[in-house]
Amino acid sequence: MKKVVTFGEIMLRLSTPGYQRFVQCDSFDVCYAGGEANVSISLANFGLDASFVTKVPKNEIGQSAVNALRRYGVDTTYIARGGSRLGIYFLETGASQRPSKVIYDRAGSAIAEATAADFNWQEIFKNCDWFHFTGITPALSDQMAQVTLEACKAAKAMGVTVSVDLNYRKKLWSPEKAGQVMAGLMEYVDVCIGNEEDAEVVFGIKAAETDVTRGELDHAAYEDVAKQLCERFNFKCAAITLRESHSASVNGWSAMLYSNNKSYWSKHYNIHIVDRVGGGDSFAGGLIYGLLTEMGPQDSLEFAVAASALKHTIPGDFNLVTKEEVETLMKGDGSGRVQR
Amino acid sequence: MKKVVTFGEIMLRLSTPGYQRFVQCDSFDVCYAGGEANVSISLANFGLDASFVTKVPKNEIGQSAVNALRRYGVDTTYIARGGSRLGIYFLETGASQRPSKVIYDRAGSAIAEATAADFNWQEIFKNCDWFHFTGITPALSDQMAQVTLEACKAAKAMGVTVSVDLNYRKKLWSPEKAGQVMAGLMEYVDVCIGNEEDAEVVFGIKAAETDVTRGELDHAAYEDVAKQLCERFNFKCAAITLRESHSASVNGWSAMLYSNNKSYWSKHYNIHIVDRVGGGDSFAGGLIYGLLTEMGPQDSLEFAVAASALKHTIPGDFNLVTKEEVETLMKGDGSGRVQR
Amino acid sequence: MKKVVTFGEIMLRLSTPGYQRFVQCDSFDVCYAGGEANVSISLANFGLDASFVTKVPKNEIGQSAVNALRRYGVDTTYIARGGSRLGIYFLETGASQRPSKVIYDRAGSAIAEATAADFNWQEIFKNCDWFHFTGITPALSDQMAQVTLEACKAAKAMGVTVSVDLNYRKKLWSPEKAGQVMAGLMEYVDVCIGNEEDAEVVFGIKAAETDVTRGELDHAAYEDVAKQLCERFNFKCAAITLRESHSASVNGWSAMLYSNNKSYWSKHYNIHIVDRVGGGDSFAGGLIYGLLTEMGPQDSLEFAVAASALKHTIPGDFNLVTKEEVETLMKGDGSGRVQR
Amino acid sequence: MKKVVTFGEIMLRLSTPGYQRFVQCDSFDVCYAGGEANVSISLANFGLDASFVTKVPKNEIGQSAVNALRRYGVDTTYIARGGSRLGIYFLETGASQRPSKVIYDRAGSAIAEATAADFNWQEIFKNCDWFHFTGITPALSDQMAQVTLEACKAAKAMGVTVSVDLNYRKKLWSPEKAGQVMAGLMEYVDVCIGNEEDAEVVFGIKAAETDVTRGELDHAAYEDVAKQLCERFNFKCAAITLRESHSASVNGWSAMLYSNNKSYWSKHYNIHIVDRVGGGDSFAGGLIYGLLTEMGPQDSLEFAVAASALKHTIPGDFNLVTKEEVETLMKGDGSGRVQR
Amino acid sequence: MKKVVTFGEIMLRLSTPGYQRFVQCDSFDVCYAGGEANVSISLANFGLDASFVTKVPKNEIGQSAVNALRRYGVDTTYIARGGSRLGIYFLETGASQRPSKVIYDRAGSAIAEATAADFNWQEIFKNCDWFHFTGITPALSDQMAQVTLEACKAAKAMGVTVSVDLNYRKKLWSPEKAGQVMAGLMEYVDVCIGNEEDAEVVFGIKAAETDVTRGELDHAAYEDVAKQLCERFNFKCAAITLRESHSASVNGWSAMLYSNNKSYWSKHYNIHIVDRVGGGDSFAGGLIYGLLTEMGPQDSLEFAVAASALKHTIPGDFNLVTKEEVETLMKGDGSGRVQR
Amino acid sequence: MKKVVTFGEIMLRLSTPGYQRFVQCDSFDVCYAGGEANVSISLANFGLDASFVTKVPKNEIGQSAVNALRRYGVDTTYIARGGSRLGIYFLETGASQRPSKVIYDRAGSAIAEATAADFNWQEIFKNCDWFHFTGITPALSDQMAQVTLEACKAAKAMGVTVSVDLNYRKKLWSPEKAGQVMAGLMEYVDVCIGNEEDAEVVFGIKAAETDVTRGELDHAAYEDVAKQLCERFNFKCAAITLRESHSASVNGWSAMLYSNNKSYWSKHYNIHIVDRVGGGDSFAGGLIYGLLTEMGPQDSLEFAVAASALKHTIPGDFNLVTKEEVETLMKGDGSGRVQR
Repeated sequence: MKKVVTFGEIMLRLSTPGYQRFVQCDSFDVCYAGGEANVSISLANFGLDASFVTKVPKNEIGQSAVNALRRYGVDTTYIARGGSRLGIYFLETGASQRPSKVIYDRAGSAIAEATAADFNWQEIFKNCDWFHFTGITPALSDQMAQVTLEACKAAKAMGVTVSVDLNYRKKLWSPEKAGQVMAGLMEYVDVCIGNEEDAEVVFGIKAAETDVTRGELDHAAYEDVAKQLCERFNFKCAAITLRESHSASVNGWSAMLYSNNKSYWSKHYNIHIVDRVGGGDSFAGGLIYGLLTEMGPQDSLEFAVAASALKHTIPGDFNLVTKEEVETLMKGDGSGRVQR
Repeated sequence: MKKVVTFGEIMLRLSTPGYQRFVQCDSFDVCYAGGEANVSISLANFGLDASFVTKVPKNEIGQSAVNALRRYGVDTTYIARGGSRLGIYFLETGASQRPSKVIYDRAGSAIAEATAADFNWQEIFKNCDWFHFTGITPALSDQMAQVTLEACKAAKAMGVTVSVDLNYRKKLWSPEKAGQVMAGLMEYVDVCIGNEEDAEVVFGIKAAETDVTRGELDHAAYEDVAKQLCERFNFKCAAITLRESHSASVNGWSAMLYSNNKSYWSKHYNIHIVDRVGGGDSFAGGLIYGLLTEMGPQDSLEFAVAASALKHTIPGDFNLVTKEEVETLMKGDGSGRVQR
Repeated sequence: MKKVVTFGEIMLRLSTPGYQRFVQCDSFDVCYAGGEANVSISLANFGLDASFVTKVPKNEIGQSAVNALRRYGVDTTYIARGGSRLGIYFLETGASQRPSKVIYDRAGSAIAEATAADFNWQEIFKNCDWFHFTGITPALSDQMAQVTLEACKAAKAMGVTVSVDLNYRKKLWSPEKAGQVMAGLMEYVDVCIGNEEDAEVVFGIKAAETDVTRGELDHAAYEDVAKQLCERFNFKCAAITLRESHSASVNGWSAMLYSNNKSYWSKHYNIHIVDRVGGGDSFAGGLIYGLLTEMGPQDSLEFAVAASALKHTIPGDFNLVTKEEVETLMKGDGSGRVQR
Repeated sequence: MKKVVTFGEIMLRLSTPGYQRFVQCDSFDVCYAGGEANVSISLANFGLDASFVTKVPKNEIGQSAVNALRRYGVDTTYIARGGSRLGIYFLETGASQRPSKVIYDRAGSAIAEATAADFNWQEIFKNCDWFHFTGITPALSDQMAQVTLEACKAAKAMGVTVSVDLNYRKKLWSPEKAGQVMAGLMEYVDVCIGNEEDAEVVFGIKAAETDVTRGELDHAAYEDVAKQLCERFNFKCAAITLRESHSASVNGWSAMLYSNNKSYWSKHYNIHIVDRVGGGDSFAGGLIYGLLTEMGPQDSLEFAVAASALKHTIPGDFNLVTKEEVETLMKGDGSGRVQR
Repeated sequence: MKKVVTFGEIMLRLSTPGYQRFVQCDSFDVCYAGGEANVSISLANFGLDASFVTKVPKNEIGQSAVNALRRYGVDTTYIARGGSRLGIYFLETGASQRPSKVIYDRAGSAIAEATAADFNWQEIFKNCDWFHFTGITPALSDQMAQVTLEACKAAKAMGVTVSVDLNYRKKLWSPEKAGQVMAGLMEYVDVCIGNEEDAEVVFGIKAAETDVTRGELDHAAYEDVAKQLCERFNFKCAAITLRESHSASVNGWSAMLYSNNKSYWSKHYNIHIVDRVGGGDSFAGGLIYGLLTEMGPQDSLEFAVAASALKHTIPGDFNLVTKEEVETLMKGDGSGRVQR
Repeated sequence: MKKVVTFGEIMLRLSTPGYQRFVQCDSFDVCYAGGEANVSISLANFGLDASFVTKVPKNEIGQSAVNALRRYGVDTTYIARGGSRLGIYFLETGASQRPSKVIYDRAGSAIAEATAADFNWQEIFKNCDWFHFTGITPALSDQMAQVTLEACKAAKAMGVTVSVDLNYRKKLWSPEKAGQVMAGLMEYVDVCIGNEEDAEVVFGIKAAETDVTRGELDHAAYEDVAKQLCERFNFKCAAITLRESHSASVNGWSAMLYSNNKSYWSKHYNIHIVDRVGGGDSFAGGLIYGLLTEMGPQDSLEFAVAASALKHTIPGDFNLVTKEEVETLMKGDGSGRVQR
């Protein structure tokens, strides 16, 4: 069984029930979430040996985050304990013209204040095949930027494939800082996932003439961005997710993969959204699964897009689907007929 | 007031709240359900004297199933008590590309293990106008196949109109066995309801060139299936429901009726789905109501399709609509404007 | 800060959870609602000084209605206490072809039985810029018709702009009585809001050849109705909301404003509905805000339509949106992209 | 099977969840309730043929009340339909030193405005063995006082045993009016149930030196009250329930029965309260069952007290217990050990 | 109407439903809470003009805290907006031998990082009669200690009575620091509330030979502590709450007041606990109300103890009781009989 | 870290919310439960390496049972997959005089139909220190009786300590069969846990003159039972739990341990019950922990009783407490004071 390590922050997610606004709610639905944690969940559900590395406080909130991962089979052996709090994000689910809203309350989290001493990468990467992180992890703090670099170096040294999801978060750092730190990390990266906004903001790589709110996609432009990414950073491949935001209720969803100087385009899904958060992470999880199990570029891409299309129908950040369910959709059955 | 008897299994339905997956839920919504029970509920809501016949265990779960029927006015006088358990089905409601999922846990149910001694058909069919069952009842066990045959014979002998909904369930029996048992029952049937898949699997009657996942419908093919059914089994009429599964969230819905060598086609509804299960049963309930109250073939069909379109918007298997509500839709008001 | 007073009934709203029908529900979601109360909430959320005037019983249900208003910043100083009960309305939320259903239980409410002695209009309108009521208030009882007239006269005398939302309720009075009472009030009104049905039923003003269930809109006809309204009653402007009821799940939504012999037409929104009740009131709230803050006719109209489009996505009658959120939509971002 | 008819009001009960106060709740738990309806439920659960007579409005709220009765097997054939509303009562469940609080909103209910024409007593009492009503029914309106008298006369004329639960409600009528109307009805009554307060307020019959808030009971005084009741109105027997209100969480509970010049005293239960409302009604239901099935005075009393003790542990007004469960407790097993 | 200002932190409280442990819950009940906010709610419910001063972030979580206060009538005019987050506390409600558990996540809150510039005490204390704070406020940060001192000085200068609840929180500061800062504030305080542990930890004032887990109370010792407090800091009076912790489900509750060299002892309540948090704050609210409305020492104390006894039966930190409800209990009716 | 293996059935537990009866509930709370699974959860929470062995069906219900174990850290490596269903038990939580009620629906479960081929005991017991099972496992089916025997033999052969909880279930087998099968297993057992009823029913070992519903305990009798058990089967020690069932709401709880010819008696707890199911299993978990970590007989017993006392306050079968929490109670702090 292939082993994948992901590294980053796991947060307590507090979301209003139904379509309630923050100011009217009297309870929060609880789940645990974070870009890299979400990827580890995807991979564990597909049957791989997935290990998530982070730091959580020594209290019941931290323990609950660990439990959420264990519940779905993620290895939590290398999660450090300590620090003062678990980061939180509040989520209000939008509908139609009203967008979903996220309020972050993540400053001072255990992982943001963690240091190199909390992680033994030689131990963590033993027998590991793949290492994944996102642009959020180095953005958490200067220490985290440093630790992420160490992790990348260790992975590289131990022959572990490295992937990144650019995931620029403007509340965490400036484009300048992001560009500088991320560029330093890219040298260790084999597979890059992003959207055209991330590529532009972080690395100044522009997708010509695309207006994402318009919902139309320009194939040539995306190919150009992916190609630039691969060329500048010597990636083996780069994937770009293409979201058409018709409204908070309905999105178009597809993706492209640029690999060995060739572009692959996925099927397109029109999605009635239940919970859109974690969609990008489930794409990453699907792509890593496809590439790691050697599905080939087109199938890996289709697997990733089908997996993440399904995520949009599941409450919470985690993509609770099996490999078989993804394959059924990927092979064409999106009819939604009752499975008895 | 016309009296209708239906006969079959009633199950405890346990469904995940909202769009939660099985593996993430901490509570189940409870209702009671089953093809023939659903039909009896429809008919009671339309104002007929509906009686449901089954066997349930002598415990609170069995009693709750009886209570669910009584709540909506179904006569439960002839429900036998005993046996070891009530059948269960677990339901996970799908959305968009993710299908709804049903897990059956019905083996060993009181009704599956019931015998002829549990039912006095002479008593049950007193003053009865119509008897309805589905292909699920004889599939439950060899005894049930036998009891269903006895019920059909008694109904016929007492001048009761008999209808069947083919409802093939692959988890319960093989196509071969289904074909053999059902064929024996068809000789007592006056009105047959099914879809083109049931007709093919059970009786080998094929709808030429139809791909149901494609969502397109071939009128000629359906007419051909209905005609073949009527001719082979000497039915007075046969109805076929036409579901276009665009996704788990949106379906097209219509039906056709073949009667006296003539085909009738209903209006077509595009439905935003709340709960799709029980849709076919509510069509049967509507059709029986129309035919029994002598609405004529076109109106009976329209009533049945409108009734079942409404069912898709109601949580649970039961179609909790009144005759007046169905008529309003059938006559054209599907605008969904607030009724004050 | 501009001050607006609204006057009318606030009711206890009891709605079935999810899409449950009345006959299947075991709990009601609770909120408080009423045309003029809803407008005051909109205005308080936009930052104005909004005061709602009514009468509620001296018990915890009455107090809870007051609390609901205070929670969102509405001034409740002039709410009279006494009488025997708070009016109630029951709501069942529809979906697709099944319409939402309202059952009123409002007879004998404290406000319907209130008298002139309960309200000191000279005090209430101190420093007030705008007074708003709907056609529901005078319909509640003969006393209320009289008190509304007194309020209108006092407002006029004190230089307060007066607006009305026609809001004809057939359960409360006949077209004849409505026409007579409303006509007497119109002489004090500056701004009139309605839909083409209200105009016809109450005042016999017809929109030529429009079939609202068809979902198509005839611009010329609406303009004609608005013009007739303005001319007959000497309104400064008249606004008409244009709802296309495709189903209970999806509506088209736009509006027009007739002002100074000129028609303004808003953008059109296609809305996936969460809770449609209060949509018209939130349009009124938005329009009053636009006109009072001197946005000009086109922007006022766009603000009103965008505000009320957002309302359709929020549970409860109250439009819990900020001015900034409305402006974002009004300026074109209806993409529903997650706001982080 | 013995048949019992009860007659009175059934209301929509809206209760705050958990121990929430009215002013903080966002949902109400829904059930249906009323003194005589509660008695009919008890009797149906014990296996008798129980029929409840009332009038409910022709809407879904009225229908839901009927459904609640049908669910538990009560005959609803003689429930009249019409009128404007169903009475409502709001309930806030207390704890410890905080009492439960009831807000009535029952004026103008269908039953309060019903007339003699709504009920055909000759039909209703066919094959009936027992008729039960409470002091609430004649208090609802002058018509209801008249209709109750007619029902009593018809019952008497048809040889039906008549029981009453005094149940004085100060919000509905004055002690004077109650005394006068009730005295007129008592001539038809065979079995009277009450507490010492009812006896004093309605009939001026005093229990010497008892302080119910003190929680101590004076046997001699209760015996005296029961004796006076029997003597003044020629009752066959009179029962008095003895509640010791230690707090809203813990009550003592017992009762006495005076029959044939002899007093019977029940066992005493110390109860941890879940839902105390309907406790008295379940005592009446138990007593009627005991007397009607000829258990003898001591056992009838013990059955009634055990039944009503169990009621205090069940959410809602209805006493959802079986005869077997009551007998188990009555015979001494109050250990609460898990029944597997 | 008397005006009271309270000053401190308001937090988002996230509590597990029912008796769930943190590690098993999937939702949190939401309310807003904090010692001084709780006092302002008590006073607003009793009918005083209560104003709460704090700082909350400019986001929907901060706004929801403000809304919670407005809902119950607290003036929120002087709440500053800004800073990065609202403090949070997680609550797991215990039962029997399992204690309730609080996890604080309050570091970096808007109020902890507020400065003198956020509050204009001259404006805030206009027409104010009473100022209340607790030992939590100066413990939040050095700035807050400074601002609290300024507030005390301003209050004193403007003739406002000042009260403090000692409320030592070991997670916020050391006994040494608390002793030093609090001593500096005490010079402005007129009324001091505490328990014997606070007095010892903060000021080294010992209650001889008392073991609070034993549940027995030593009157002489408490009197001695109160007397020492009054003498050392020249308080007009000092109150001590006496909690006997029999278990998480049942507590004894009473208090004493030392005023003018005389001790007053309250009645004692045995409480079945629904939600114990906020019990001390509701005592403070009751005592301030009693003293400010000049009830005299014994009645003020009885009012405070009765008010806080009721708090233990109400979910959330806020004491949602009226003056009349407190008086009913204080005058002796703790029988918990249903109020109809 | 010590390793413990437990072996048995894990079921889906469906319980009514609050104190609802089965016949009134519309949803079930979901958890997973079973005697040996519960023990493994206790041990994992205390920090041991706990592995649970069973067989579950290859569907989402089976997976959810596995996930529930993983969530709390139990090793699930040796759980076999296959068979047709997961056993179910329905639970209605009692209160006061109304007992909790369990309805089993466990026939035909995957584990009952499992065979020797599903379990490789040599592999399972590698590095294992302790093996625990209950009398339920061999009662499930003849195969299970056989497999349990094989497990016991393998454990013994590999030097693993073996414990049993007698746990007689009358719905699963007769006393005769239980006595015969269990006697055959006892030869491999080192530590026996039971109550005096189990000892009598299964082995005919009588506790003289004890009436468990009376709530009084006879020390000499229990000592005698324990001694007889040890002597007949050569156990190292035997523990007996002593439950005094005052009501479904309040129980007394203590236990005794007989070891090396000496009796040890625990402290006694008076418990306000939240969820009593799993109480015995948590005693077993505590005792195993104490004995395995060499606490000595008195401390092991106290640890076990304190752990299981806490269980009674936690919803679900699982005892979600830490070693530290148990120690705090065991050392005497049962005051239930809020832990901040």
